[in-house]
Amino acid sequence: MILDKVQNPDDLKKLSIEEMNTLADEMRGLIIKKVNTTGGHMGPNLGILEATIAYHYVFNSPKDQIVFDVSHQCYPHKILTGRKEGFTDPDKYLKYTGYTAPEESEHDLFKVGHTSTAASLACGLAKARDLKGETYNVSAIVGDGSLSGGEALEGLDNAAALKSNIIIFINDNDMSIAENHGGLYENLKLLRDTEGKAECNFFKSLGFEYFYVKEGNNIEKLVETFKQVKDTKCPTVVHLNTQKGHGLKVAEENREAFHWILPGTLDKTGNVPVECPESYTSVTLDYILNKAKEDKTFIAVNAATPGVFGFSPDFRTKLGKQYTDVGIAEEHAVAYSSALAKGGAKPLLALMSSFVQRTYDQLSQDLCLNNSPITMLIYWGGISGQDCTHLCIFDIPLISNIPNMVYLAPTNKEEYLAMLEYAYKQNEHPVAIRVPNVELDSTGVKDDTDYSVLNKFKVVEQGDKVAIIGLGNFFNLAKNVKEEIKKRFGIDATLINPRFITGVDKELLENLKSTHKVVITLEDGVIDGGFGEKVTRFYGNSDMKVLNYGAEKEFTDRVPAEELYKRYHLTPELIAEDIKNLL
Amino acid sequence: MILDKVQNPDDLKKLSIEEMNTLADEMRGLIIKKVNTTGGHMGPNLGILEATIAYHYVFNSPKDQIVFDVSHQCYPHKILTGRKEGFTDPDKYLKYTGYTAPEESEHDLFKVGHTSTAASLACGLAKARDLKGETYNVSAIVGDGSLSGGEALEGLDNAAALKSNIIIFINDNDMSIAENHGGLYENLKLLRDTEGKAECNFFKSLGFEYFYVKEGNNIEKLVETFKQVKDTKCPTVVHLNTQKGHGLKVAEENREAFHWILPGTLDKTGNVPVECPESYTSVTLDYILNKAKEDKTFIAVNAATPGVFGFSPDFRTKLGKQYTDVGIAEEHAVAYSSALAKGGAKPLLALMSSFVQRTYDQLSQDLCLNNSPITMLIYWGGISGQDCTHLCIFDIPLISNIPNMVYLAPTNKEEYLAMLEYAYKQNEHPVAIRVPNVELDSTGVKDDTDYSVLNKFKVVEQGDKVAIIGLGNFFNLAKNVKEEIKKRFGIDATLINPRFITGVDKELLENLKSTHKVVITLEDGVIDGGFGEKVTRFYGNSDMKVLNYGAEKEFTDRVPAEELYKRYHLTPELIAEDIKNLL
Repeated sequence: MILDKVQNPDDLKKLSIEEMNTLADEMRGLIIKKVNTTGGHMGPNLGILEATIAYHYVFNSPKDQIVFDVSHQCYPHKILTGRKEGFTDPDKYLKYTGYTAPEESEHDLFKVGHTSTAASLACGLAKARDLKGETYNVSAIVGDGSLSGGEALEGLDNAAALKSNIIIFINDNDMSIAENHGGLYENLKLLRDTEGKAECNFFKSLGFEYFYVKEGNNIEKLVETFKQVKDTKCPTVVHLNTQKGHGLKVAEENREAFHWILPGTLDKTGNVPVECPESYTSVTLDYILNKAKEDKTFIAVNAATPGVFGFSPDFRTKLGKQYTDVGIAEEHAVAYSSALAKGGAKPLLALMSSFVQRTYDQLSQDLCLNNSPITMLIYWGGISGQDCTHLCIFDIPLISNIPNMVYLAPTNKEEYLAMLEYAYKQNEHPVAIRVPNVELDSTGVKDDTDYSVLNKFKVVEQGDKVAIIGLGNFFNLAKNVKEEIKKRFGIDATLINPRFITGVDKELLENLKSTHKVVITLEDGVIDGGFGEKVTRFYGNSDMKVLNYGAEKEFTDRVPAEELYKRYHLTPELIAEDIKNLL
Repeated sequence: MILDKVQNPDDLKKLSIEEMNTLADEMRGLIIKKVNTTGGHMGPNLGILEATIAYHYVFNSPKDQIVFDVSHQCYPHKILTGRKEGFTDPDKYLKYTGYTAPEESEHDLFKVGHTSTAASLACGLAKARDLKGETYNVSAIVGDGSLSGGEALEGLDNAAALKSNIIIFINDNDMSIAENHGGLYENLKLLRDTEGKAECNFFKSLGFEYFYVKEGNNIEKLVETFKQVKDTKCPTVVHLNTQKGHGLKVAEENREAFHWILPGTLDKTGNVPVECPESYTSVTLDYILNKAKEDKTFIAVNAATPGVFGFSPDFRTKLGKQYTDVGIAEEHAVAYSSALAKGGAKPLLALMSSFVQRTYDQLSQDLCLNNSPITMLIYWGGISGQDCTHLCIFDIPLISNIPNMVYLAPTNKEEYLAMLEYAYKQNEHPVAIRVPNVELDSTGVKDDTDYSVLNKFKVVEQGDKVAIIGLGNFFNLAKNVKEEIKKRFGIDATLINPRFITGVDKELLENLKSTHKVVITLEDGVIDGGFGEKVTRFYGNSDMKVLNYGAEKEFTDRVPAEELYKRYHLTPELIAEDIKNLL
């Protein structure tokens, strides 16, 4: 194999174009096999393979610096920069992260997993180089989908004004995770259609020098252009027309499905319809479709991650005009939804916990200050074994400390549906719901709670001495803690489902004082700034002992959830042990 | 006066162009007089006066809807929509806010005070209109300075793809608060220079229909173009070449100084040099200039609000290459600074508390996850009588719950300088400093604390029974509370200066248990998710009584600080009263 000769980018420089083509084939095979085994980003990495080889052939990493946007297109880069064992040796498939990671290699500059950051980051690297009086190339590689994010646009605007060497490679495979949305994409299409010759050019309008590579998966052509732009003295865009999933037919033809795949996807034959059990996802899809039918102003909004919510192409087609994917543009998604409500429509905005981070000020100013009655669904919130860039534990502090917001945490299907209906009907507040990130639970009994009476906690089982407040995902943990306490101490603890994240039920908490000594709060997220601390604050001037459980304030990286539960004492046994001395 | 005949926009429609020109002169006089009396945004409002008259002449507000970006250019709009008494009657000068406010008028759609939001908001209004099957015009008016913000760019990208009526008026006065920064502004210049005819057109590249008005302060010309675009069926940009401060010579010539002015600015004659006492601002300016001299990689960064930090044109010139104003682009500012540090430079990023809200995800992902050692200065943090859109009370929950961040709160000049030096020298963490928003205090004794030992609180005076932890701005309040407690209860309370916002000093708090019954925390910001709750959580399983003081979670609107201090019990007397029963 040619790859045997390549330990680092310098080795590439000895290869001929033909050898590099062979190398690309070898790498493609490795990536396909590895990703099909472990799961991961298939389409983006196959699309950028040749450009990565060409980059490392022409430029001199790590002296020349390159920043990967999202960095989910860095697998070929990892193979070429000393980490090929992560692709050749199945035992080491999980040794390296799926994103760039400076602790793995000097060829990686940043940990990146959220989109639209590379132009800004490259800008800083380039300016630092200039301040130091040095002269190397600083590049960013940005997917077309990432271009619609505010940070990317701010970054490009500033990069264009840098008056110095900075090269932005646009990896244009005509696709975000799903299809692209936004006027900008018409311009990319025009540029592709005219082979980069159209005068009306988004990048030129910002002031970039502009180069177009028609065959973005052709190493020879790529090398030719890269040589032209290397050592440029001015901000330059190189627009690469690449093919998502290049070289894997099924990925080329199913670009959305093969953006990121589960293990074993390629081994399945045919389209076996899967019987899915009812889940919070399926309940939500049914709710949306029904509501859209009965109310023509009802509209579902999301920001480029329809798959997270199960918004399939078929589902989107059914919704028609009552569906907006704003592209990667979470800030716009929130402001847009606020204004939809102000304009008399009924928006439901779905966001993933990790990505709601991209829009704090819009939540505060565009939405909450204006008290626009939207429904916002937050998915995937909770402790998991995720990569450090996709932790979903910060949404509670982020959302719940903004005035006017009502943030709810259902614990079963009926509560969830009642909350959705409340959010839809009311006109008082923005209402966010943390969609449970656990298996669906159903009581079978309709929930007729009036959620417009804010911050009313629900006592599920009245007991004494100890009260356990189990928020959302962790209500089941609360039940288990109750059992453990019964078993170990013979105490019938009170079990509380708070339902509201954004405030405490002062009356209920006050009443607990007379018959309880200890209150435990459980939340599936970081404790700092979260729900439990509000309960503790309430009891600050009293004799009540309060213990808050949740995640510690830290970035964890692919640490299994089970291990984190132990670390954070999120098991009935460890919690019982903690309170032993307080009883 | 013509204005006597104008109660609402309908009355405008009966006027001739000549009468409207006279009306503009009348309104200009009123705005100048009022703003010079109360302080406020002078330049932006004088620049947009004629366009506002033309808008209301051609369009039918409130059926036709218009969203003002930032809304600090809405004074003429207020005069024409039933609120002229706020400009004609000095007794009512303060009756209306300086921003759009739906509770004041049906002609105002949103409360807006942060920039770059109007395109997104208009997009939502337009889509709501389409869902309802109605047909009115939806417009946004966006200043050129606001265009560089990510939310604006996301909004424009989406607006351009709307396939329906939406009109974006670009109020291009070739000026942000200070000068503009970014490649986009070269394109605006090209468009102005070619009277809108250049093929390379940022707005067209996004897919907008494009109109240019050369004389943006000429009502007749404006009316002409506005009539052309009214009822358009497709996304349209109308690029208005206006003059900031139009009609007031001193404002036309001093565009930055007259963007927003203090009361009485026009009454001063000549340039009387003012002798300014030493302040945290002046100390910071000296620090930056000195550091920039001794380290060529030291660089000061800000996002379009140099005036907030006292970064005068002269100061900026002195820094030269070691200064970056990224324009209104806070997300980019954070990512850029993180990468500057990664690239080996020493960035100091200055942001105002209210505007750091615009960049949570970049703080988390680009900065803290990568642990880039930057210095970040947060200005104006604290409770004030500000407008609801510019409250500076949310930065502590926002910043301090992000892992890896070190957020510091100095209480005097020497601490501040020591913290600056620590932040500069260390390579471990992003370090944010909450620049005190109070008069400068100086001990005269160099602070030699080693701040790399994180979360060490300082006992300033050792006492017993009661411990008062006074954070940053509120350290003086803590001193006063101590005195009050001495006076009323004869207790020598312990006085603590925590200095660190991002964590608690567990050892010190533990030690307090043996000799103290009550701990009081004081922070100049919202309590929810803030500093005090962390202290309370620490004591949750103990007998210590803890009371947290700070702002309640609410948006207040121009409520005087004194009144808020009473509301939140932030006076020595009210606090002493609160703890009476706990002693």
